[in-house]
Amino acid sequence: MIDYTNINFDEKGLIPVVVQDGESGEVLMVAYANRQSLEETEKRKEMVFWSRSRQLLWHKGETSGNTLRVMELRLDCDGDAILAVVEPAGPACHTGEVSCFFRTLTEEMPGKATFPGQLWKYLKERQHHNPKESYTASLIQSGPKRAAQKIGEEGVETALAIAVGERDEVIYEAADLVYHLMVGLLSSGVSLQEIWAELEKRHSSH
Amino acid sequence: MIDYTNINFDEKGLIPVVVQDGESGEVLMVAYANRQSLEETEKRKEMVFWSRSRQLLWHKGETSGNTLRVMELRLDCDGDAILAVVEPAGPACHTGEVSCFFRTLTEEMPGKATFPGQLWKYLKERQHHNPKESYTASLIQSGPKRAAQKIGEEGVETALAIAVGERDEVIYEAADLVYHLMVGLLSSGVSLQEIWAELEKRHSSH
Repeated sequence: MIDYTNINFDEKGLIPVVVQDGESGEVLMVAYANRQSLEETEKRKEMVFWSRSRQLLWHKGETSGNTLRVMELRLDCDGDAILAVVEPAGPACHTGEVSCFFRTLTEEMPGKATFPGQLWKYLKERQHHNPKESYTASLIQSGPKRAAQKIGEEGVETALAIAVGERDEVIYEAADLVYHLMVGLLSSGVSLQEIWAELEKRHSSH
Repeated sequence: MIDYTNINFDEKGLIPVVVQDGESGEVLMVAYANRQSLEETEKRKEMVFWSRSRQLLWHKGETSGNTLRVMELRLDCDGDAILAVVEPAGPACHTGEVSCFFRTLTEEMPGKATFPGQLWKYLKERQHHNPKESYTASLIQSGPKRAAQKIGEEGVETALAIAVGERDEVIYEAADLVYHLMVGLLSSGVSLQEIWAELEKRHSSH
C-alpha cells in the first residue's frame, strides 16, 4: 500500500513523476499524478497518470499497448517528486522513440551510464533474428558452448592486456568480454539483473 | 548554445529538470529552471536552478560544494521537461544521501539497472583505502597482474559454467568476473565509460 502521508501534492493536487526503465536505467518520460491516479497505478500495477491537457486519468498504453509495468515507486526528500521504476512494454514516447528525451540541447555524450542496459535489451531482442543477418543471433542459436568459448578467450586476452599495461588493448578486449558475457548469459537464460542482484547481495554483506 | 525555441516554460516561466548521474545512471533529484537559470547553467557548466521556495537563482552546491557538472542537457518530445546528465561532486541531496529519491513508496527492487555504475563509483572510492581493511584496495594496490590473473580465472570459470549449463554457477561466476573486471580496469586507469563508448561505437556501426 502506498503511504500518502509524505506526498506533497501541489496547489493543483499534482506531483511530477519521473519514469525510469528498470532494466536499462534510461529516463523515459516525465508525467503528472494526482492521488486518484496513484491509487489506480497501485491497483493495475501499471502507470496511470493525470493528463493535464485532457484533464482526465490517463492509463499509459491503454490504446497503444505501450504500458509501463511498475517495478518500484520512490519519493524524494521533500515529497514533491516521484521516481517510477518501470518495465516498459514498448517505446514510451508517442513518437515511437524509446524515451521522450531523444532531443539534445547540448552535445551528445559518448559512453553513457545507461548504455550497458540498452545494449542488453538490444541483444535480447536480436537473439531470435535470422542468424545469417545477425552475429549475435548466430552465436546464441549455435548453443552456449560457443559463447562460453569466446568468454574464456576474451577473459584471457583482457587479462594479458591488463598485465602488460596496453591501455587501448584493455579497452578493446574488455569491450569484447562484456559483449560475449552478455551473449553467454542470454544463451544460459540468465538475466543481467540476476548478476546485479548477486553483486548487490555481496556488496551489502561486506 | 542552448536553443530556447523548443523549450515550453510553464505559466510561471519554469520547467522541471530531472537530474541523472552520468556515471551511475541514478536519478538524483528534480528541480526547476527558468530561462535565466539555464543561461547561468550554460555559462558555469554547472547546474543552476530557480528556487521556488526562495524565489532566487540557486547555484547547486555553491555553499555545500556538492555541485553538479553538466555533461548533457536533453529536452523531451513536447518540450516541457529537461533531463540533465551530470557529474556530481558529492551527494546531491541536502540530507547527505547520494540521491533525493532514497525513500521507497513500494517494495525495494533488487538488482536494479543503475547498480553497476554505483558499484563502479564505490570501488573507485575504495581503491585508496587501507589494503588491510579492503579486499578491493589490496587487489588494486598489489598492481595490475593480480587483478589480471583473477579475470583470466573467472573468465574460464564463467565459460565452464555456461558450457555445462549450471544456472546458479553462471550467476556466481559472472558476478565474480564483473567485479574483477572492474578492479582490473581501475588498476589499468581505464574507466567503465571508455568500455561503453567502445561498445557504442561498434554497435552503431553495425
